[in-house]
Amino acid sequence: MNDADGDVLARVAATIERRRNANPRDSYVAALLAKGDDAILKKIGEEATETVMAAKDGDKIRVISEVADLWFHCLVLLARHGLGPADVLRELARREGVSGHAEKASRG
Amino acid sequence: MNDADGDVLARVAATIERRRNANPRDSYVAALLAKGDDAILKKIGEEATETVMAAKDGDKIRVISEVADLWFHCLVLLARHGLGPADVLRELARREGVSGHAEKASRG
Amino acid sequence: MNDADGDVLARVAATIERRRNANPRDSYVAALLAKGDDAILKKIGEEATETVMAAKDGDKIRVISEVADLWFHCLVLLARHGLGPADVLRELARREGVSGHAEKASRG
Amino acid sequence: MNDADGDVLARVAATIERRRNANPRDSYVAALLAKGDDAILKKIGEEATETVMAAKDGDKIRVISEVADLWFHCLVLLARHGLGPADVLRELARREGVSGHAEKASRG
Repeated sequence: MNDADGDVLARVAATIERRRNANPRDSYVAALLAKGDDAILKKIGEEATETVMAAKDGDKIRVISEVADLWFHCLVLLARHGLGPADVLRELARREGVSGHAEKASRG
Repeated sequence: MNDADGDVLARVAATIERRRNANPRDSYVAALLAKGDDAILKKIGEEATETVMAAKDGDKIRVISEVADLWFHCLVLLARHGLGPADVLRELARREGVSGHAEKASRG
Repeated sequence: MNDADGDVLARVAATIERRRNANPRDSYVAALLAKGDDAILKKIGEEATETVMAAKDGDKIRVISEVADLWFHCLVLLARHGLGPADVLRELARREGVSGHAEKASRG
Repeated sequence: MNDADGDVLARVAATIERRRNANPRDSYVAALLAKGDDAILKKIGEEATETVMAAKDGDKIRVISEVADLWFHCLVLLARHGLGPADVLRELARREGVSGHAEKASRG
């Protein structure tokens, strides 16, 4: 993963913000945000199920595609709640630090 | 999001790889990977449901925490299938490019 | 619940069987069965998520409606696998017997 | 399915009602109801995911067992909201009637 990749989530989140106020007829994101929480959450349930099915089929291309769908809809959900990928990455980094220490401790 | 944040997913994925062959009694990740696909997929279904519930409660802290759980277990699933976050980010970037063009085109 | 109600699942299952070979353009069930397992399973993931959302909203009418949707799609899945509601009810009855005994035992 | 089977859902619902006020240490149902909506809903998400996985494996015995788990936890959810299986069966019967007429109409 090069530096450019590292910013992908931030760039997708910025696009979501930009399309937020577009005409719902022109933008999938605007349409989804206009429908509200339940429509976004339904997609998260759906994409999680599709991730499960792709993995059961052992189909790597579809696993990548379905996880991308799942993460994308998580980014829409975060935007809806005034949050962004940095909040989630910060939480993952925090746990990483903690579990790193915990692991070090467990190794004595 | 600063540069350090951008590498969080890669760092978490590296930790998952490192713990992969740890003793399942010492490492949650090793235990989950030892149990196989179904155990990981069950967690993805579970964390997706918990994300839905946190969002319905309008609880931002729990939304962040549950999305972090969901993405973490996606990273474990990707590792299990010989994949990593870069594969998903590349797919998201590819779509971003496409939909950017599509949006430009639609603006005429 | 009167006797007539008791047969509802069997009647719905019989309708599903009857529509199985209908023209997919005329029948939702035929269309769903023609699409295969993944389409049915996607609906089960979706209806489970909608049940969760209806319950979080405390909306009894929608809870009933979403659980009905969920059970209906379970009946379609059972039909797809050559099974029916009687198989599930028999399993529930078996557990009921077992846990009844277990409960009696636990009361000493 | 014989007549006795037809009453299984009602009997399981009656057992759930009876155990509702048991000591949570003695009864799974009492423990689940004591934990509240989120614990029950998490189980519904979990059992839906397990149903999906069993079906993908083409394992009929597990499909029956997972659908039974899913329906059982739906009965617990219904009890929690002051509802019961008769409400869901009535809704399924209502739709059956409607779609029966719709189907007749479509056959001209």
